[in-house]
Amino acid sequence: MFEVKNKNGRARRGVFSCAHGGEVQTPVFMNVGTQAAIKGGVSAHDLQEVNCQIELSNTYHLHLRPTDKVVREMGGLHKFMNWQGPILTDSGGFQVFSLSALRKIKEEGVYFASHLDGHKIFMGPEESMQIQSNLGSDIAMAFDECVENPSTHDYVKQSCERTYRWLERCITEHKRLNSLPDTVNPKQMLFGINQGGVYADLRVWHMKQIRDLDCDGFAIGGLAVGESADVMYEIIDAVEPHMPEDKPRYLMGVGTPTNIIEAVYRGVDFFDCVMPSRNGRHGKLFTWEGVVNIINQRYATDPRPVSPSCGCPLCKNYSRSYIRHLFKADEVLALRLAVLHNLYFYNDLMEKIREAIAENRYEDFRAIYSEKLAQRAVD
Amino acid sequence: MFEVKNKNGRARRGVFSCAHGGEVQTPVFMNVGTQAAIKGGVSAHDLQEVNCQIELSNTYHLHLRPTDKVVREMGGLHKFMNWQGPILTDSGGFQVFSLSALRKIKEEGVYFASHLDGHKIFMGPEESMQIQSNLGSDIAMAFDECVENPSTHDYVKQSCERTYRWLERCITEHKRLNSLPDTVNPKQMLFGINQGGVYADLRVWHMKQIRDLDCDGFAIGGLAVGESADVMYEIIDAVEPHMPEDKPRYLMGVGTPTNIIEAVYRGVDFFDCVMPSRNGRHGKLFTWEGVVNIINQRYATDPRPVSPSCGCPLCKNYSRSYIRHLFKADEVLALRLAVLHNLYFYNDLMEKIREAIAENRYEDFRAIYSEKLAQRAVD
Repeated sequence: MFEVKNKNGRARRGVFSCAHGGEVQTPVFMNVGTQAAIKGGVSAHDLQEVNCQIELSNTYHLHLRPTDKVVREMGGLHKFMNWQGPILTDSGGFQVFSLSALRKIKEEGVYFASHLDGHKIFMGPEESMQIQSNLGSDIAMAFDECVENPSTHDYVKQSCERTYRWLERCITEHKRLNSLPDTVNPKQMLFGINQGGVYADLRVWHMKQIRDLDCDGFAIGGLAVGESADVMYEIIDAVEPHMPEDKPRYLMGVGTPTNIIEAVYRGVDFFDCVMPSRNGRHGKLFTWEGVVNIINQRYATDPRPVSPSCGCPLCKNYSRSYIRHLFKADEVLALRLAVLHNLYFYNDLMEKIREAIAENRYEDFRAIYSEKLAQRAVD
Repeated sequence: MFEVKNKNGRARRGVFSCAHGGEVQTPVFMNVGTQAAIKGGVSAHDLQEVNCQIELSNTYHLHLRPTDKVVREMGGLHKFMNWQGPILTDSGGFQVFSLSALRKIKEEGVYFASHLDGHKIFMGPEESMQIQSNLGSDIAMAFDECVENPSTHDYVKQSCERTYRWLERCITEHKRLNSLPDTVNPKQMLFGINQGGVYADLRVWHMKQIRDLDCDGFAIGGLAVGESADVMYEIIDAVEPHMPEDKPRYLMGVGTPTNIIEAVYRGVDFFDCVMPSRNGRHGKLFTWEGVVNIINQRYATDPRPVSPSCGCPLCKNYSRSYIRHLFKADEVLALRLAVLHNLYFYNDLMEKIREAIAENRYEDFRAIYSEKLAQRAVD
């Protein structure tokens, strides 16, 4: 399922496998297809062209629309969106806390109102597992509370104690669902999620509690919610020594290329973030030379590709002048090409990270790129 | 350049060639990429996948943005949008009359204000030819006045006399531009445009005037602007006998599958219309079984492709349930897949039309499909 092949400091080069697709090479960036489609007019088929290894969809969104019952009736998410590779679904927890209104957290779960039409919904650990089982993803995420930042130490302590109890219930329900005769994907895995806000003591306590539970991997959740990057790195530094060596580690919702380089340096294997597609849709293109704001007037008659070394559908076929024109002319094709470019870049970044670890030069790689990739590209 | 291979009644099966691409099989539907991109996130590269033979872009839009000077500097439209096949550009006339404000028509041309920012522009026959020469299209269209419907007989008579004089100026300027040493596409062709509103006498008079001018093809313009389909067919019936047999005939801006079948029946070879992409973006999908409104609730759990016999990227990969979900979830991917489907259908329609003509059974084809394709598909 997961094997660490090389280590370079704390950075890990590994392989992972699950019920769909071949071997996943880690560290890996999971490409986000929230509602069973990638924002910007990108299909699962297109993901192959940008070397995506794992697709990620959102439980909360799919539960509301088209509903997990529909997805199950259509044969599960792989068949529905025609993606044969691995799929990870989040638990719905993050969206329940960030999008929905009128939420009430109780021991049994969360009562909230749909952000689409206000109808009342209950979701607890069992419901989250049932929805993810209906979706038939390869990796289900445990249902947790993602606390707001800032929150008091007292509140976070109570919350992550409850999240621990919820994880126990998730594991029980997940095993039951996987053993049913008509389960969409009976080999579905379950990852537990570490919480504890920005309090290192709670993070460590929680990680020590959950590390011995029967999970296929562990995530660090509740970061990248407004705290500084330095605080995020400190939390990873605190938690990582307590995470099992032999299981994948997933830093949820992170982040910029710099964040990823820094988190890999601290021993993280899995990532996901909406940043490449969201920034792409605003004309911010990631390259090995830094960030290109393609809407800038300076590119109006620039015949070069955005990044000469890039093999994406945008850089292989079109000039800076053309993609800038598409943005200025409000053509949807601008969004699509920019998203494809950024996803290609992120997947390429992970490949270069893996090579650097395998060749025992990750420290050098980090020294060159950690800052550079956050800067504006110099022409 | 153009040869009629078979006739079946007045319907013609032909081949056409120009400076780019191989032989174009006619009757042909030209796929519209207004601003050097196809609405709905479809690229020139994607057009190959839906069997597009000729791409059409709009002179008015490209003149305003990114400007024809930029396109010329980037090597012309073929290079700019990376499309190696034939390109037709319209004259700008239609948009000057339908989109711009404050227009004044004089003998020398039209003064108008940009619909984007209101800046004042002058376009006459020479300017239209110069812009299209900068774009480097394979077929330039003559600059004409597309009169409003309804307009008086007197006004239309004056207008089409002027359009005739404008055509003479277009031809002169077009020859001059093609002979310049640094012309983007020195083999650019020029098609003249028949006008005359809904007045058969003016249409015939105008056609007889222009038929002997040195044009590579002739279009019927100024139809599909609000008149009934029957009136449109009557005008084609009146004009067609006066069009040269050995040159392609292009019915501008038409139309529904039914309109195309009826116009081919009356001897037309070239078509273009925004309908497949526009209707696609609203969830109206053309199939050989009739029109499918994919947003309908009945398709929510329908596992079948939109059209089982269709080879487009939508029908080969996804269910009705999935594409409906994408529309309901406001995913841009819905637009893209629907547009690809409809363009594929239109290109396929033309192929089936050509087969029917070649096999001398166009009358039967028309009897089966002319009405059927306008109806809602029965499940």
